[in-house]
Amino acid sequence: MKSEPFDEAIRAVAHKVADAARVVTLGHFRRPLSVESKAAAFDPVTIADREAEAAMRAILAELRPDDGILGEEAEAVAGTSGLTWVLDPIDGTRGFISGTPTWGVLVGLRNAEGPLFGLIDQPFTGERFEGGSFGAHWTRGEEHRQLAVSETRTLAQATILTTFPEVGTPDEGAAFHRVARQCQLTRYGMDCYAYALLSGGHVDLVIEAGLQSYDIVAPIAVVRAAGGIVTDWSGNPAHDGGTCIAAATPELHAAALALLNA
Amino acid sequence: MKSEPFDEAIRAVAHKVADAARVVTLGHFRRPLSVESKAAAFDPVTIADREAEAAMRAILAELRPDDGILGEEAEAVAGTSGLTWVLDPIDGTRGFISGTPTWGVLVGLRNAEGPLFGLIDQPFTGERFEGGSFGAHWTRGEEHRQLAVSETRTLAQATILTTFPEVGTPDEGAAFHRVARQCQLTRYGMDCYAYALLSGGHVDLVIEAGLQSYDIVAPIAVVRAAGGIVTDWSGNPAHDGGTCIAAATPELHAAALALLNA
Repeated sequence: MKSEPFDEAIRAVAHKVADAARVVTLGHFRRPLSVESKAAAFDPVTIADREAEAAMRAILAELRPDDGILGEEAEAVAGTSGLTWVLDPIDGTRGFISGTPTWGVLVGLRNAEGPLFGLIDQPFTGERFEGGSFGAHWTRGEEHRQLAVSETRTLAQATILTTFPEVGTPDEGAAFHRVARQCQLTRYGMDCYAYALLSGGHVDLVIEAGLQSYDIVAPIAVVRAAGGIVTDWSGNPAHDGGTCIAAATPELHAAALALLNA
Repeated sequence: MKSEPFDEAIRAVAHKVADAARVVTLGHFRRPLSVESKAAAFDPVTIADREAEAAMRAILAELRPDDGILGEEAEAVAGTSGLTWVLDPIDGTRGFISGTPTWGVLVGLRNAEGPLFGLIDQPFTGERFEGGSFGAHWTRGEEHRQLAVSETRTLAQATILTTFPEVGTPDEGAAFHRVARQCQLTRYGMDCYAYALLSGGHVDLVIEAGLQSYDIVAPIAVVRAAGGIVTDWSGNPAHDGGTCIAAATPELHAAALALLNA
């Protein structure tokens, strides 16, 4: 892959950040852990989550002291460089506590306009999906592959993924299922791994709601670098959270967007 | 682990069978493949499925010529030994064609009474979940762990898994959701990997419907060897297919069974 010096510096830091999170999260994965329930809903926040984000932030504090940090577990850090690292130490905590190998560590970088770089790491499978101005690729140990979305243009040929069948509010859920009913195959429960599979051309459409910015900045960068299109359900930028539709092709994106807003 | 000579012979054959399937399935995983649609429903039957089962059967024909074979892709073979190998080369074909690492190769052995041995292999993660009279264990390369179900006794503390939110017929789906609504967490889309996670103590309950015998003989053997309980929704043996409920404890099994039949 061809990369500029800026890209290489960013990538080197991002990989160190993901490496640190990998050690912490794998140390807790499939081990007994205390799960706290926040408020009425079951919202697992684990020790692994907090420890991993602390490890990630420590590396950024040392190597990128001028950049901002937005993460799930601790206060935002305002930077002076115009760049902000967007971190989710365990995207898919429900999958994590269920032992499934489909959660991920998210490391994103954005400026005022939006995502510049994204890395989706799956520590248990050893996979890393990465995207930026240098392109998009998948690595696993010594294995390496370019990432490219599929050429699927119609809902009837599409595989659609989302995390929960409920998909946000009742209205949002109804909108999702208007799209899903037209698709060839609907699958659930993949969290950020869904965007990784979209980037690899294995599925064609990911639609979610109720997202936070730290859930989606890194996935947007990976999907776009692999040739996909990502917006919110109004066709606007999705990087601040809320709703999200990520599609392999503009035709598929348009067809799904029309049904979401029907 | 302590094993009798019979167990060791069976295990050696089962691992060879799984190794053969692993090579074939991984060769097709995340590669373009033709997906046929059978009848009206979307029922992916892949080249990988057929080639893998042929490779598995070839090994059994050579090493266990007196045993019967029941598999998904080809005709049943009647044996003379009273033992039947029950094979599913790719359990979770929808997951397989979507690129998720949660499908599995199933190798089971049964006699007239039911399952004796089971192996759930996940070729991409390199995990093997195995159970029989010798116990239950998980291996991944050089890593090795005993498998044991959780001690969860109440639905309110349970994580429940199933493959599709629809779960069989509309009545079966309604029965499933009566149970799921009482559980702490519901997850979808894991296929046979759900039984592997149950055996490892990561989730507590798996409820499915519309199963074939080749889907469930191996998982039953693994879950039971790990200390779990598996029946159909009437409390009878589940190894001939249909409905299935697999639970970590008798208390959890009874609570779920009562709601399924409420």
